[in-house]
Amino acid sequence: MGQQSTAIPMVLDADQLFNLFAKTRAASVALAAPLSDAEATIQSMPDASPAKWHLAHTTWFLETFVLRDSVEGYQPFDPRYAYLFNSYYDAEGDRHSRPHRGMLARPSLEDVLAYRAHVDAAVSAAWSTLSQRARNLIELGCHHEAQHQELLLTDILHAFSQNPLEPAFWPASQLRPASLPQALCWVDGPQGRVDIGHDGQGFAFDCETPRHSVWLAPHAIANRLVTISEWQLFLDDGGYRRPELWLSDGWAWITANRVDAPLYWRDKDGFGLSGRHPRHPAAPVAHVSFYEAEAYARWAGARLPTEFEWEASAPNTALAGMFGDVWQWTASAFLPYPGFSVTDGAVGEYNGKFMSGQMVLRGSSDATPSGTSRITTRNFFPPHTRWQFAGLRLARDL
Amino acid sequence: MGQQSTAIPMVLDADQLFNLFAKTRAASVALAAPLSDAEATIQSMPDASPAKWHLAHTTWFLETFVLRDSVEGYQPFDPRYAYLFNSYYDAEGDRHSRPHRGMLARPSLEDVLAYRAHVDAAVSAAWSTLSQRARNLIELGCHHEAQHQELLLTDILHAFSQNPLEPAFWPASQLRPASLPQALCWVDGPQGRVDIGHDGQGFAFDCETPRHSVWLAPHAIANRLVTISEWQLFLDDGGYRRPELWLSDGWAWITANRVDAPLYWRDKDGFGLSGRHPRHPAAPVAHVSFYEAEAYARWAGARLPTEFEWEASAPNTALAGMFGDVWQWTASAFLPYPGFSVTDGAVGEYNGKFMSGQMVLRGSSDATPSGTSRITTRNFFPPHTRWQFAGLRLARDL
Amino acid sequence: MGQQSTAIPMVLDADQLFNLFAKTRAASVALAAPLSDAEATIQSMPDASPAKWHLAHTTWFLETFVLRDSVEGYQPFDPRYAYLFNSYYDAEGDRHSRPHRGMLARPSLEDVLAYRAHVDAAVSAAWSTLSQRARNLIELGCHHEAQHQELLLTDILHAFSQNPLEPAFWPASQLRPASLPQALCWVDGPQGRVDIGHDGQGFAFDCETPRHSVWLAPHAIANRLVTISEWQLFLDDGGYRRPELWLSDGWAWITANRVDAPLYWRDKDGFGLSGRHPRHPAAPVAHVSFYEAEAYARWAGARLPTEFEWEASAPNTALAGMFGDVWQWTASAFLPYPGFSVTDGAVGEYNGKFMSGQMVLRGSSDATPSGTSRITTRNFFPPHTRWQFAGLRLARDL
Amino acid sequence: MGQQSTAIPMVLDADQLFNLFAKTRAASVALAAPLSDAEATIQSMPDASPAKWHLAHTTWFLETFVLRDSVEGYQPFDPRYAYLFNSYYDAEGDRHSRPHRGMLARPSLEDVLAYRAHVDAAVSAAWSTLSQRARNLIELGCHHEAQHQELLLTDILHAFSQNPLEPAFWPASQLRPASLPQALCWVDGPQGRVDIGHDGQGFAFDCETPRHSVWLAPHAIANRLVTISEWQLFLDDGGYRRPELWLSDGWAWITANRVDAPLYWRDKDGFGLSGRHPRHPAAPVAHVSFYEAEAYARWAGARLPTEFEWEASAPNTALAGMFGDVWQWTASAFLPYPGFSVTDGAVGEYNGKFMSGQMVLRGSSDATPSGTSRITTRNFFPPHTRWQFAGLRLARDL
Repeated sequence: MGQQSTAIPMVLDADQLFNLFAKTRAASVALAAPLSDAEATIQSMPDASPAKWHLAHTTWFLETFVLRDSVEGYQPFDPRYAYLFNSYYDAEGDRHSRPHRGMLARPSLEDVLAYRAHVDAAVSAAWSTLSQRARNLIELGCHHEAQHQELLLTDILHAFSQNPLEPAFWPASQLRPASLPQALCWVDGPQGRVDIGHDGQGFAFDCETPRHSVWLAPHAIANRLVTISEWQLFLDDGGYRRPELWLSDGWAWITANRVDAPLYWRDKDGFGLSGRHPRHPAAPVAHVSFYEAEAYARWAGARLPTEFEWEASAPNTALAGMFGDVWQWTASAFLPYPGFSVTDGAVGEYNGKFMSGQMVLRGSSDATPSGTSRITTRNFFPPHTRWQFAGLRLARDL
Repeated sequence: MGQQSTAIPMVLDADQLFNLFAKTRAASVALAAPLSDAEATIQSMPDASPAKWHLAHTTWFLETFVLRDSVEGYQPFDPRYAYLFNSYYDAEGDRHSRPHRGMLARPSLEDVLAYRAHVDAAVSAAWSTLSQRARNLIELGCHHEAQHQELLLTDILHAFSQNPLEPAFWPASQLRPASLPQALCWVDGPQGRVDIGHDGQGFAFDCETPRHSVWLAPHAIANRLVTISEWQLFLDDGGYRRPELWLSDGWAWITANRVDAPLYWRDKDGFGLSGRHPRHPAAPVAHVSFYEAEAYARWAGARLPTEFEWEASAPNTALAGMFGDVWQWTASAFLPYPGFSVTDGAVGEYNGKFMSGQMVLRGSSDATPSGTSRITTRNFFPPHTRWQFAGLRLARDL
Repeated sequence: MGQQSTAIPMVLDADQLFNLFAKTRAASVALAAPLSDAEATIQSMPDASPAKWHLAHTTWFLETFVLRDSVEGYQPFDPRYAYLFNSYYDAEGDRHSRPHRGMLARPSLEDVLAYRAHVDAAVSAAWSTLSQRARNLIELGCHHEAQHQELLLTDILHAFSQNPLEPAFWPASQLRPASLPQALCWVDGPQGRVDIGHDGQGFAFDCETPRHSVWLAPHAIANRLVTISEWQLFLDDGGYRRPELWLSDGWAWITANRVDAPLYWRDKDGFGLSGRHPRHPAAPVAHVSFYEAEAYARWAGARLPTEFEWEASAPNTALAGMFGDVWQWTASAFLPYPGFSVTDGAVGEYNGKFMSGQMVLRGSSDATPSGTSRITTRNFFPPHTRWQFAGLRLARDL
Repeated sequence: MGQQSTAIPMVLDADQLFNLFAKTRAASVALAAPLSDAEATIQSMPDASPAKWHLAHTTWFLETFVLRDSVEGYQPFDPRYAYLFNSYYDAEGDRHSRPHRGMLARPSLEDVLAYRAHVDAAVSAAWSTLSQRARNLIELGCHHEAQHQELLLTDILHAFSQNPLEPAFWPASQLRPASLPQALCWVDGPQGRVDIGHDGQGFAFDCETPRHSVWLAPHAIANRLVTISEWQLFLDDGGYRRPELWLSDGWAWITANRVDAPLYWRDKDGFGLSGRHPRHPAAPVAHVSFYEAEAYARWAGARLPTEFEWEASAPNTALAGMFGDVWQWTASAFLPYPGFSVTDGAVGEYNGKFMSGQMVLRGSSDATPSGTSRITTRNFFPPHTRWQFAGLRLARDL
């Protein structure tokens, strides 16, 4: 998510939760294993964070909301880390300025891994004594960390893309091959009253609730994502040079930033976590902004689906690629559901504070940790965002 | 509206239309009568336009879409004006850059009034020969001009507010006195399926259509607008200094811009079209941004209504001030209605191009020309906008 | 001057001074006569001021430093004007922000002319009673006003240049025709010890003093200014595209601002106070920045003269165009002469405060009021400045 | 130097030169020894470079101008490094953008050290065959590298200052203790004609030549640098809040940047290469901009010396601290000496291109490599620069 949100805790049993905890914590370390200290330190733009920071911040979350608050006598690994690795929790005090995260050559990656081990050991040692509230926070912390695992990948990709040596994070592609493209066809979506949002069975972030009704007009949704070869047609047809295809803000943005292709297109190639590679025409287009997705849809004589249309259609198994590949921009602004309310305390301090100026993405990407995708998940980013693994699926009115 | 939208033309009979045309054109000139040439020339910020520009642009609209396109042999008043007074119609060619509108010391106000007279005479002379399409465009032009009449007032107020001499546009208040404040009470709104949008009877802008259903959750809406005295309580309670009350973007905005009160508050006074004046505690608060309105609502334990809740409640005559006083920020982003589509040609070129990054306001203000307010009207501005006559009404979930 | 400087007052007799005063005050009004209220109000950039402001500021100078300080019982025309028309005298209190001078639609031009008449009458009425200090300040005020007369022209030209209608300030050129070009030849300048700076006979600004010695190396100076046809050769030779010709700051500046010709060149034409006109190949090039002048000189295998070389050569009447046409950029930074010191009081508060980041220009331009050019005059502007009437003369080492 | 300049090569014998080469190359590696890969990678602002970059760029200089140009069959260590580690030599082709140097997590510090070893070995192997031109370039490369050694320290200090952990580069101060403060007294400087600039005996950068005469007015120069305790008096006297003490640009700069003390002052402490430490009242003040130095001098009733006064006084051994401690801001803009001309070829491409917008500093600092300080050295930086080891000495007119 653009910013993580807090959760509606659900009761897993103690073993299930410990497995989730152990798996999640190990996965972050494994993910960062290819990185040198220097690679884990750099920050390529204010929106991105160093890999080291992701590793430390997710640890701070557990140290603060579980160990400090629930484990008597816990000694923080380093009391200065609270200042360094708080992200945006005002109730937790001052914090290091986001654009300066890349200045933290110290603590070293080794220090941060020691920090992780220290906190993991303390959580494990206290396991049998933890309150239900603490366990709920651990579950939340695991989902929070899963989000940061994806962000670690998007941010490393962006950092590596700034290096003229075009380094690879993975020696060869570890992302699964793109689905083969099907012929594009239109599937009628549900219409009339439909129920939207999480039903309370299992974990969800608060912004996915409350479950409520919306009324859908007749519409159809594409059976698959837009591909690279289709995007090339848009580009060849002058898509980036025709103001009539663009939202006013989008046109201003591509003009000011000289945008004329998806973010990581380089001549005939793309650039990804495995370095530079030929573009696969059948693969879903990725690293496009909402503005570009919206312009493409207009050019194609279609539109983006709303997040409600998307969610209503997702259970329909005839549709390919609702999850995986790339997140899918929708036509919906990120706004609270009717009856949405904020959780108490620092964890929930800012549940809704990002509900302005952002668009919803649905689905998941190949970089999303397995087991964390829900039909009700609402990812969100500002409309000019490109460094996420984001593409699109078309829809149209009937 | 933040930007005018094109319309769904309706058939008025010829006399009704001529009356509308004559009244509208005369009203603009009357509105600008207090202004000197210099006052009509200056531009206080890129978002605002000089009064002279409003007078000329609305005239260019008629000259271009009616006279040029439908009246054979029409000679433009000055062929260079098309470049100067086009606002954003790309199909109509290049245009003068918006932030430089204040450089147009020439043509003079006198020149612009002559331009108006020339075009009005040409339209009148051709009246009996005009096609239905041309008449529809005149009707649209009148509604377009009504919007610019309100913008002329908001822009003059902003320009005058920059002058340390605190000049008055009107010698004494010509805005009707604020409604007396009622006790705040909550009125249950309609719930379940309701129909939203314009039904096709009479004029409407395209973004008000198509009429369609939405599903409303149980909610209540306040019987009146938030007042200056209530806002003072928010301010006294540290409303502008407490990040937990604000959207993240809103907090960044007030911090960067050092916002700590509504736009035209000066010590104990306000500043308006009649100059500096004591603030009336019972008057609706005005010149607040969406961010401020949203923070106030959170502080008050409530929220803003969605535009659908507002529209569904508006026919309920128990609610005071749905129109007049100030436009009312809603919780809704400005997005297309299901089935919305774009009109052909330059007039409709950009019907939807502002549907990004803006919030909907409903109702109307004291500066809105009489006879142009509809229950379905959707005004829209970016969330930081303050120079409009904009306030708020509260809502809450049930 | 970029900013006016205060003066070393000299004793003129009372009649001479009154003639200077009357002539100077009348000249400003005559200069502004072609302007409408709107034209006298607009401000095209923060560096420029409205014509009305120049007329009022020079009046404020006399009202403050002569009438207020020396004439008992003087009633200010409007006590609020001190805030509006102070330029940068901190000791005189707060002042209106420079970038907002263009917001002063009020006071009107008529008001400002009445202000001038009021102050002129008050000075005249008090004439016989004025102290020598007050008379010195009047003389200073006249030289100060002469500088603003030139700035009024540069600023109006810049404002008019922003108008697509390309208005003319003067119906036909009132600037005298450019000197016919001579063959370029080199004149040896004085070498060894030379004396520089004002000798105390007659008026001078403080930065022209003290007179002091410098040591000049062998050098020659061109007999005339660089012409438009010569500049065209530079341009045709890729002068604006060859980084090796430019100072590092200059290259960054032309790149960031996409500079590729002198400021007012438009296709084959130029734009001036009489509107658009064909460029005269033999005329001195004008409206170039120091960066451009310096790059041209390098391209030409020469350099700019230092201000000391210029001053040492100026008495040599064999050199054409030391005054008039355009100010001449020199290779000298604007720094204090040895022994320079600041005058007491508000008038002298900031004598040296502009001695940073600016380059010296010598000579005068066609827009400089007659009778105000001195061999010792030091005009100064930042190196990227283009809107002044500024060109160049070459020099070289021997 | 703000930017290195090219040199006037002098003939050392082959052994002397090899000693210089070996000592210089080893010194850079030793200097960087305390740094981790991450610490050597980060870049704290566009003006600063990563330590790794300094190590690589100085190596690129030798590889390009010596090995590539003079050693037949030399194989570059990595052909892509030319793009990464060129600083600003346009004739050497495109280069990596300066603000993105901090993105180079690869090559690693280890890679860069291998690069250094490769180049050093190649130079050593070719030693007996090198032409005189190549040897001259090696000597120049050594002086160039000495400059980068100082910059490496200034840049690491700045980067470490951004880290809330306040890391130390050196475990305890390795800078020699500050000279004990003497009573401030004034020493008359030479007056009349004096000769300035390098006389051709031994190495110098081109901007130190040609030797030429200047004429000095009567003046005196302080016997020592301004101290921290003296600066504290300036600060306590409101020095940073009194506009009358400041150049106009300086006042705008401290206001915009909220400057109210020297760069690394933190409460009662300072921050340096050994981390946070109490400020020593007798130590020379350091890390002040030209603007601050100039304001201090005005407050003290004095002024900064010109670079000519400084150079003329430097041989006078009665003056303490002409070298070491901190570089000394002068009142002189960095401009070419009479007769200055540019060396041929890429090395000399831009000899004078930084002669705009910069002020001269004289002397040297404790971070300057020993043996590289000359009476004629002209260091230069823009007037707002603070991250250099820069302080001041006072002067006054007689």
